[in-house]
Amino acid sequence: MTRLSALSRQTLDYLEQPVHATWSRGVSMSAIEMTARRSRERDDLATRYLGVRGASKRLCEGLSVEDHIVQSMPDVSPTKWHLAHTTWFFETFVLSRGPGVTPFHPAFHDLFNSYYLSVGKPFPRAQRGLLSRPSLDEVWAYREHVDAAVMDRLARGDLDAEGARILELGIEHEQQHQELILTDIKHVLWHNPLYPRYAGAEPVERASRDRCRASLRWHGLSPDIADLGHDGRGFCFDNELPRHRVLVPAYELASRLVTAGEYLAFMRDGGYRRPELWLSDGWDFCRREALSAPLYWLERDGAQLHFTLRGLEPIDEDEPVVHVSGYEADAYARWAGARLPREAELELAARGRPVAGNFVESGVLHPVAAASGGDIAQLFGDAWEWTQSAYAPYPGYAPPDGAIGEYNGKFMVNQLVLRGGSCVSPRSHLRASYRNFFPPHARWQFSGIRLARDP
Amino acid sequence: MTRLSALSRQTLDYLEQPVHATWSRGVSMSAIEMTARRSRERDDLATRYLGVRGASKRLCEGLSVEDHIVQSMPDVSPTKWHLAHTTWFFETFVLSRGPGVTPFHPAFHDLFNSYYLSVGKPFPRAQRGLLSRPSLDEVWAYREHVDAAVMDRLARGDLDAEGARILELGIEHEQQHQELILTDIKHVLWHNPLYPRYAGAEPVERASRDRCRASLRWHGLSPDIADLGHDGRGFCFDNELPRHRVLVPAYELASRLVTAGEYLAFMRDGGYRRPELWLSDGWDFCRREALSAPLYWLERDGAQLHFTLRGLEPIDEDEPVVHVSGYEADAYARWAGARLPREAELELAARGRPVAGNFVESGVLHPVAAASGGDIAQLFGDAWEWTQSAYAPYPGYAPPDGAIGEYNGKFMVNQLVLRGGSCVSPRSHLRASYRNFFPPHARWQFSGIRLARDP
Amino acid sequence: MTRLSALSRQTLDYLEQPVHATWSRGVSMSAIEMTARRSRERDDLATRYLGVRGASKRLCEGLSVEDHIVQSMPDVSPTKWHLAHTTWFFETFVLSRGPGVTPFHPAFHDLFNSYYLSVGKPFPRAQRGLLSRPSLDEVWAYREHVDAAVMDRLARGDLDAEGARILELGIEHEQQHQELILTDIKHVLWHNPLYPRYAGAEPVERASRDRCRASLRWHGLSPDIADLGHDGRGFCFDNELPRHRVLVPAYELASRLVTAGEYLAFMRDGGYRRPELWLSDGWDFCRREALSAPLYWLERDGAQLHFTLRGLEPIDEDEPVVHVSGYEADAYARWAGARLPREAELELAARGRPVAGNFVESGVLHPVAAASGGDIAQLFGDAWEWTQSAYAPYPGYAPPDGAIGEYNGKFMVNQLVLRGGSCVSPRSHLRASYRNFFPPHARWQFSGIRLARDP
Amino acid sequence: MTRLSALSRQTLDYLEQPVHATWSRGVSMSAIEMTARRSRERDDLATRYLGVRGASKRLCEGLSVEDHIVQSMPDVSPTKWHLAHTTWFFETFVLSRGPGVTPFHPAFHDLFNSYYLSVGKPFPRAQRGLLSRPSLDEVWAYREHVDAAVMDRLARGDLDAEGARILELGIEHEQQHQELILTDIKHVLWHNPLYPRYAGAEPVERASRDRCRASLRWHGLSPDIADLGHDGRGFCFDNELPRHRVLVPAYELASRLVTAGEYLAFMRDGGYRRPELWLSDGWDFCRREALSAPLYWLERDGAQLHFTLRGLEPIDEDEPVVHVSGYEADAYARWAGARLPREAELELAARGRPVAGNFVESGVLHPVAAASGGDIAQLFGDAWEWTQSAYAPYPGYAPPDGAIGEYNGKFMVNQLVLRGGSCVSPRSHLRASYRNFFPPHARWQFSGIRLARDP
Repeated sequence: MTRLSALSRQTLDYLEQPVHATWSRGVSMSAIEMTARRSRERDDLATRYLGVRGASKRLCEGLSVEDHIVQSMPDVSPTKWHLAHTTWFFETFVLSRGPGVTPFHPAFHDLFNSYYLSVGKPFPRAQRGLLSRPSLDEVWAYREHVDAAVMDRLARGDLDAEGARILELGIEHEQQHQELILTDIKHVLWHNPLYPRYAGAEPVERASRDRCRASLRWHGLSPDIADLGHDGRGFCFDNELPRHRVLVPAYELASRLVTAGEYLAFMRDGGYRRPELWLSDGWDFCRREALSAPLYWLERDGAQLHFTLRGLEPIDEDEPVVHVSGYEADAYARWAGARLPREAELELAARGRPVAGNFVESGVLHPVAAASGGDIAQLFGDAWEWTQSAYAPYPGYAPPDGAIGEYNGKFMVNQLVLRGGSCVSPRSHLRASYRNFFPPHARWQFSGIRLARDP
Repeated sequence: MTRLSALSRQTLDYLEQPVHATWSRGVSMSAIEMTARRSRERDDLATRYLGVRGASKRLCEGLSVEDHIVQSMPDVSPTKWHLAHTTWFFETFVLSRGPGVTPFHPAFHDLFNSYYLSVGKPFPRAQRGLLSRPSLDEVWAYREHVDAAVMDRLARGDLDAEGARILELGIEHEQQHQELILTDIKHVLWHNPLYPRYAGAEPVERASRDRCRASLRWHGLSPDIADLGHDGRGFCFDNELPRHRVLVPAYELASRLVTAGEYLAFMRDGGYRRPELWLSDGWDFCRREALSAPLYWLERDGAQLHFTLRGLEPIDEDEPVVHVSGYEADAYARWAGARLPREAELELAARGRPVAGNFVESGVLHPVAAASGGDIAQLFGDAWEWTQSAYAPYPGYAPPDGAIGEYNGKFMVNQLVLRGGSCVSPRSHLRASYRNFFPPHARWQFSGIRLARDP
Repeated sequence: MTRLSALSRQTLDYLEQPVHATWSRGVSMSAIEMTARRSRERDDLATRYLGVRGASKRLCEGLSVEDHIVQSMPDVSPTKWHLAHTTWFFETFVLSRGPGVTPFHPAFHDLFNSYYLSVGKPFPRAQRGLLSRPSLDEVWAYREHVDAAVMDRLARGDLDAEGARILELGIEHEQQHQELILTDIKHVLWHNPLYPRYAGAEPVERASRDRCRASLRWHGLSPDIADLGHDGRGFCFDNELPRHRVLVPAYELASRLVTAGEYLAFMRDGGYRRPELWLSDGWDFCRREALSAPLYWLERDGAQLHFTLRGLEPIDEDEPVVHVSGYEADAYARWAGARLPREAELELAARGRPVAGNFVESGVLHPVAAASGGDIAQLFGDAWEWTQSAYAPYPGYAPPDGAIGEYNGKFMVNQLVLRGGSCVSPRSHLRASYRNFFPPHARWQFSGIRLARDP
Repeated sequence: MTRLSALSRQTLDYLEQPVHATWSRGVSMSAIEMTARRSRERDDLATRYLGVRGASKRLCEGLSVEDHIVQSMPDVSPTKWHLAHTTWFFETFVLSRGPGVTPFHPAFHDLFNSYYLSVGKPFPRAQRGLLSRPSLDEVWAYREHVDAAVMDRLARGDLDAEGARILELGIEHEQQHQELILTDIKHVLWHNPLYPRYAGAEPVERASRDRCRASLRWHGLSPDIADLGHDGRGFCFDNELPRHRVLVPAYELASRLVTAGEYLAFMRDGGYRRPELWLSDGWDFCRREALSAPLYWLERDGAQLHFTLRGLEPIDEDEPVVHVSGYEADAYARWAGARLPREAELELAARGRPVAGNFVESGVLHPVAAASGGDIAQLFGDAWEWTQSAYAPYPGYAPPDGAIGEYNGKFMVNQLVLRGGSCVSPRSHLRASYRNFFPPHARWQFSGIRLARDP
């Protein structure tokens, strides 16, 4: 506990040590090695836990009490709910593993359950914004209570291997909700005609603004029989497993994301009025919702503006377009004479490259223009890249036992895979095998477009 | 200004001086009398203004910041919105009458407009709960700003007769929203499985609890050719005018409101499962919404509870039933072999009686059992009484000119009249000719049932 | 039976003998007089029954088998259903009164029940168009079967007084459905881009076409204390009773219905874009449905056409406007500086006048221009006249006992009264005290506008 | 033309000659060979055309005029519409290729266009049941008119290669609609409480009824790198191309379809009440629609019945379960400890096997119990088999140019692939590479379940 207690929670910074537990690991070692390793791992886990919990808190510094309460659509959750739910995850799946633990509040068990039907009766998703109580202060107290209990467990070495594995899962889970906090609050603030600025958003660095325009080039990739999925080193989600062999024909990938300027050309060419460019469901969606531009774009006095976490701004045509649905991404690709990539194509391209790019840590909270250069840019960060791949189990996939099995497996239908992370993803959360997924009509995510084509 | 400035806003109590301006007044008097009278009226108006504005503030003392934000259905508005909208009314209709006044915030003009289409583009009603900004603090600042400006106008004698009339209308308007603040927050808190208590609610006084059960008696009233509507003394809304002659056949009125216990008997007799008791639209509503009890009632472990502003409580069978729709009221009446009264019947019965009863000032915020006694009880307060009368213009009715004409006139279809005020109405706001109105499916109001029958 | 059997059903014409049974009748007479009278009445009833049943059949001569099946919205019923339901009414309420009668088909009991919850489980209204079986031929056989049984009952003198009363009600009921057959088939054919013509519609007579334009004049009517409702001579529906005394202030009534040309002026003056002209619910309806003209109007190459039972035709500006909702009627009246009449005002104006005008018998099946002349024109026929009166029970109203009590009473909420009948009403079905009713958004009825105003 | 004119259309039987044109064919041959071959192909095409058109007609012999008109939900089309739309396909895509052809009726161009946005404005799908006109007779005349014109073209050798290819596509297209005619009319008749029988349905042959119960066995299939998709011999749809190499791990396939009895066991084990068995979207669907059994099942007096084209019948537990959604199929598989197959797994298993089984030609129009035996049974016919594969373009897929490109390509999202054909599919329409597709909630198709599992 000494090392832990020496850490001042207030000064903890965003920590990104790689974490080494995995869902399936089987390297054998001596008992002494084991003990030493476990202790080291425990300390790593505590550090990482505190780091991630602190990062959530810092995200909320840019928000008023009132901002924490609002839910602008069923898919969006109030910030307060995110803060409580991530805490609930640790309380329910980690703390409850041990000897009889008193829950912080008996009603929270259902109130902050998102969708785990095997451990209770989740409060209806669409009504999360109706909960003025518990107050924000109580939720912060809930977090502190659970943090102390988790630290205590770790300090006492009181967590079995499975417990440690779930703790790690909880940490990654909280990082997912950090991204959602920003994604959701953007949607909330957008519905306010005052177009308020999120106080945590930084102005874009000079460097990004001054980048010369990176023209789009095509990179050819060879056909391959390759292994897809996570290689077992470090953490991964169950949906990245098992690693399995696939056959990937030759393909070409665009050197960067599609820019706002390119997307504007699509719009000006009647992209939203030409059914031949759209999937049938996409066209129906486009008509029903009367789409004519990405989400958060609006025209005012002839100028094309968009709403960002910094408020209402003119479009920068060199920045990647973002907040398009999978349908719009697909229609754009068809218009451009290309197609959306398959998820294997993106994973193979990203594999071996460093996880570098524009993430939440930059504070920009919006995609920035790609640097011009020789390599394939923006494979990580800036915007999630829509693929044409339906989100499906890998061959041989089996969800974990118990409630945790609901984490990913039950969502494997009606969704498309997105790859690469975005400008609001924590860097340490991403990797080449990471699979994000949303239904093709989702627009409020930081989702953009990378083109692919057949050679 | 001296008299006004002597008033400490903090110590102002709920003031209830009768106010004497009316929409149509034409008594002639000398110039000196006029001046004296105007000055007296101005001071009265200022006192009343400050009293009512202070009362709104006190209602919010029982609420957290978070409570002010939530909207639980389109018909419900967040408390913050009520506070801002009533202020907007004074700013828009009173202050804007004078020489160029800078609005407190340019966006508020539309943001806090409820439904006045002739003065702008009201922010969509169903989205009021999405507005985390302006903050609650800013709304309080807005209120202070407008209060100071109104006081200044009054002190300088800078308000013409029409301005004074609209100021008075604004005061009455704010009282209507005081009732809505309580009605709406009850609905908000009800959606929270914690069933929180509104901190401003008082326990019921011993006296009410100990009342012996008042049995229901019938009072016969003679047929009459009578004048219906307001007599022109004191304030009234436009929909109470013009006074006009009507023919009212003989009728009988129940001595008190229908109690929860009586309503329970209706339920136990299959009231919600017997179509022959219901209007056709009511039956459809009952099936569609799967109604089986008044709003806010719930059964737990076989006991019949209901949610009040004091939290979840057992039903007191002697208290009036409340939160029933017009459809339920009508079905109950049919079951009881009676009918709902017509609005003229209630007005004639209430006329001449003092406005006495259980109002918001009692702090109980729930109906209480009627005292047993000889007279017709509960004609004012406790619960709004559904009538069978459609809300329609009186013969010769003409709405006022301008935006104020939207206040009542445009709602005269698809609604039923309710009479008498409720336990959350300010006493000074009520009178015998007062017409409230809601569509027959509305249940979140403090609406109850008084029976009538033909002799 | 002789007189009856002498009648060839095929040659029976539309017969309009006044029928003298009423709901409450109590004149005493001698036994001999009684017997003679009953026999005469029975023959009258048989004649009238056969006449009305034959008229329904003739209405269908203009339709293909396929036309009988379609339901274009929940409010519309397929012709086949109308033919079966009116028959069901006689089978259920008249034939079942006698000794054990075998139903024609056991499933018809629910299948063709419209809304009588006390005698079964009506087949869902919105699904009537899903019933390809029973075939149209089977429905005609059902009709013949019931007709024979009714005739048999009458010939055998086997119907008690209540039975005769209900038979008469069934005849009037069938006349209501005759109007609905035309109203509904117009809606069905309108949804077909071929805009088919109903084969039964006649071209307008020369006389009507050549009428000189009748300018609108105002007729003053004196204030009165009058008796409203049916006087007990001849048939009436329960909702026209009891006759009761009302006080009617002086009023003025327009000399004819509002014409299509006048309505066009309202449209050109921005009538559908000016919220200040509309009731609040009406404005919401107007926006939600994107209204810009009456139902059945469409613009083609700059010309204003409308769909009639004769097919698509240019608007005749002198004809009354028809197929407007109550909301549009109210907005038009406000635009014209007038108001809609109250139902008492129309009843008093119509009382004492002959029931003359443009009814279904003319075969025109569309309103025709008013003749110019001194009197108030078009009080009967052409178009149902929207009133501002909510459909409510008259003081002392009690629905009949049993299922027949569902006929009118349960609809007395959320509807407006319309008066006077239309160009698709059978003449013998109408009278001055007749109350029709529809919700204010209904447009598919032949509903038009007559203006009223205060003197 | 001689050979053609010798054919009496009335006596033409269902003909199933294999047809040899394909979308991409490139075998070179001499000019004489070419001419001979073309003439032979033309005659084959004419024969096949007439055979398929005649088969559509025979399907309607079991229907009344009224049956042809009804649409029971937006996904269902009236029979009359199917008859007209398939004809429209030939008129629009085949006949219009030649010199100026007068359309049969100008309005049919849009009226019977299903979804081809590039050739007009399709009449709204959900309103197809509103079209009482054109009459059924006119639609039959339309068919004869187009048949004559097509025959004339073929006789004159007036169709280019592309024209012949599209004619062949039209023939296959009509076969798809033959299946839909039966699928849709079953849904229409089901909504009728008379539960009418489709006159064309045969009783099940003795042979099928007497089959001994075939127990479920597992067949192991080896891992493979195989070519998926059509091999270019004979007709195929564009979505079966291009043939491409895939890697298929070892898998096991059930020896027959899941039976109604097995499915009943799932139901009795609480299958519809256990969220852990369901995909998340599936569970939501199950709750929202209150599912508790396959479509067309109903319980009556404790007995489990189901509606078939022969009317209401008791469940035969040995027959395959049918009319389950993809969600139910997936939940069943999870309950059974298995999974749904991938489409490649079914294609590889079916490849090389004869297209034999229970198809529309048997006249049973319902799945029959599998014969017990050594091989994998029911790979063709009986019931479409849900796969877990999202319907996606094969690598390198490109839709054909022009409107025909809308045939398949634009539907490649939000759907699952089904394989194998059903008891209402024409046998000649099927092959191992055939890809059917429906959204996972579709239940009105003859869709069943085959289990797969990992070794």
